Amino acid sequence: MTATAVSQRAFNFSAGPAVLPVSVLQEVQDELLCLPGARTSLMEMSHREKEFIEILHDAENSLRSLMGISDDYAVLFLQGGAALQFSMIPANLLRGTDKTAAYIQTGTWGKKAIGEAKKEGKINVVYDAATSNFNHVPAAGDYQVADDAAYLYYCSNETIQGVQFQSEPECPSSVPLISDASSDFLCRPLDINKYGLLYACAQKNAGPAGVTAVIIRRDLLDRGSDQLPGYLNYKNHAENDSEWNTPPTFAIYVLGKVARWLTNDIGGLDAMEKINREKSQLLYSAIDESDGFYASHAKPDCRSTMNVTFNLPNDELLTAFIKGAAENDLVNLKGHRSVGGIRASIYNAMPREGVECLANFMKDFASKNG
Amino acid sequence: MTATAVSQRAFNFSAGPAVLPVSVLQEVQDELLCLPGARTSLMEMSHREKEFIEILHDAENSLRSLMGISDDYAVLFLQGGAALQFSMIPANLLRGTDKTAAYIQTGTWGKKAIGEAKKEGKINVVYDAATSNFNHVPAAGDYQVADDAAYLYYCSNETIQGVQFQSEPECPSSVPLISDASSDFLCRPLDINKYGLLYACAQKNAGPAGVTAVIIRRDLLDRGSDQLPGYLNYKNHAENDSEWNTPPTFAIYVLGKVARWLTNDIGGLDAMEKINREKSQLLYSAIDESDGFYASHAKPDCRSTMNVTFNLPNDELLTAFIKGAAENDLVNLKGHRSVGGIRASIYNAMPREGVECLANFMKDFASKNG
Repeated sequence: MTATAVSQRAFNFSAGPAVLPVSVLQEVQDELLCLPGARTSLMEMSHREKEFIEILHDAENSLRSLMGISDDYAVLFLQGGAALQFSMIPANLLRGTDKTAAYIQTGTWGKKAIGEAKKEGKINVVYDAATSNFNHVPAAGDYQVADDAAYLYYCSNETIQGVQFQSEPECPSSVPLISDASSDFLCRPLDINKYGLLYACAQKNAGPAGVTAVIIRRDLLDRGSDQLPGYLNYKNHAENDSEWNTPPTFAIYVLGKVARWLTNDIGGLDAMEKINREKSQLLYSAIDESDGFYASHAKPDCRSTMNVTFNLPNDELLTAFIKGAAENDLVNLKGHRSVGGIRASIYNAMPREGVECLANFMKDFASKNG
Repeated sequence: MTATAVSQRAFNFSAGPAVLPVSVLQEVQDELLCLPGARTSLMEMSHREKEFIEILHDAENSLRSLMGISDDYAVLFLQGGAALQFSMIPANLLRGTDKTAAYIQTGTWGKKAIGEAKKEGKINVVYDAATSNFNHVPAAGDYQVADDAAYLYYCSNETIQGVQFQSEPECPSSVPLISDASSDFLCRPLDINKYGLLYACAQKNAGPAGVTAVIIRRDLLDRGSDQLPGYLNYKNHAENDSEWNTPPTFAIYVLGKVARWLTNDIGGLDAMEKINREKSQLLYSAIDESDGFYASHAKPDCRSTMNVTFNLPNDELLTAFIKGAAENDLVNLKGHRSVGGIRASIYNAMPREGVECLANFMKDFASKNG
């Protein structure tokens, strides 16, 4: 069964939920009826069981080790996705203060976060790339953040537009920097000490849908009012080691395996970044060397290593591209309706082989239709 | 692998996450690398993919069919567990009104719901079983609910105490009845038309942790303010068919399989109720026929068919019971620290054979130690 199933798998360029390492899926499959050392499935196990607590701690410690997260930060595993973080962040850090929160808007997800934050307090969109159809990120000096801002929020990689910050935006040291890293979490090393809070829903680069990793500096945990809905208060989750209520145990278990795969099979985030740069360069080269047949959506200096967005000369060719790619085992390439064209999501778990196949298909398709 | 893994499985009396049907686990295992008809794992599939939308609709339709849910109700699949429902219910139906919400408190989970509701508006605990250590539920006439109450909230089965309402509490027709059915969801037929809202986190009787089914009468969807955090507004989820944001796809997929197992393998909720009555009676008989060796926590008229709670003469015997049971493949029987003793959770998926083994062990243990 397993060998057959593996051979049936296509190269899956879905933007999320997205490709997972085959070795992780195989481990999950092997352990599904009975977790080794236990006598039940992980899915049937109380979150208070010793075996699950070990899995939870392993997942946390793998992230701490991969990302160099000190004990100054809590690592939480929450439900509700990025959408709930859009509200939890201002509910904890802005609601009830007279401060203003600064937001950088470089795409769809930043825009959604702003929509939720407006309900909670005063915000200031310090940079807005909407007028250029979200094709870039700001440079230092393109915006100002007040020293007394509640926080500065940005989305490190806009999944839909395929624009990615190459490094953290400028931010006064007095202002907590907050990142939605959902679609480029664990794709490269970063200095977590620059952040007040960094979060990522798992279903792009770290696991299945249903769990969101939140890394929060502990001094920010006390900002939420006791009158917040309990689930929305970060402090509750931090004080209870992500077990304030029943956590999404299975999703955490898979996330932990992905983190271990990154450590043991890939060799950590430096190695992962090198692979991601090489993989994405294969596609950007195919775009740049197509004599204008393919048009990149993102400007060159902020092209994403995770989501490669480009368009074709017309809708007819776009349809033919998607159809032809699928016939070559390259699936889920259609871009988001708001941007159109093609989006090739090449997260950590996308094998280099899949990207090479796509790059070759792109060159072939351009030469036949250009 | 599979045959070995099945033989390694114990009878798992965990209160939740809890036992799942073996046939469901085997299906999940078989499909883990590649969903039939698709070319990726379910976990890797976009929630917007046709194949997942079908799974989502199948899960919803299975619940509608099993429970006789008409289109007057929305069926939602949400994250955040019962804990988030404790807040979402009053945030949508009480906050900003001058009404009072009525709560019946018959155990730990009702108490937690009350704690969250107090943050959102005026509440009235119309019945409180705390003074008798939560060993019963009220009879009709034991409490009054005002005709203009925002709603009447109760927990149909208190998992920790093992007390269960045998039918819905009395409630004026003008008042929406709300039930936390987390631990007895799908254990028996009920008339959903009596309810304004009924919800259940999946990890007791319906699937893995990480998804909560919410069945809400559509006229209640408009009560939430647009200023609520978006994730907390039921209307957003209902209008978007549980895809306002990325839903917990894998947990929904397993829940759908459990619902289909109930329909096809068990034969629906009437059949399930009969089995549950028989299974629980095996244990209650072992208690009642033990000449007082075992002491039931719940009063006879509200004993749960899902969580059977009882104590032993002393802590030494309790420890010996748990140890001896584990040696007989009967695991996770320790009661919650707030009640002590034994809690045997015998949800839908617990095979009759497991309950028979436990009943026999109880009789044997009592005769040797009584």
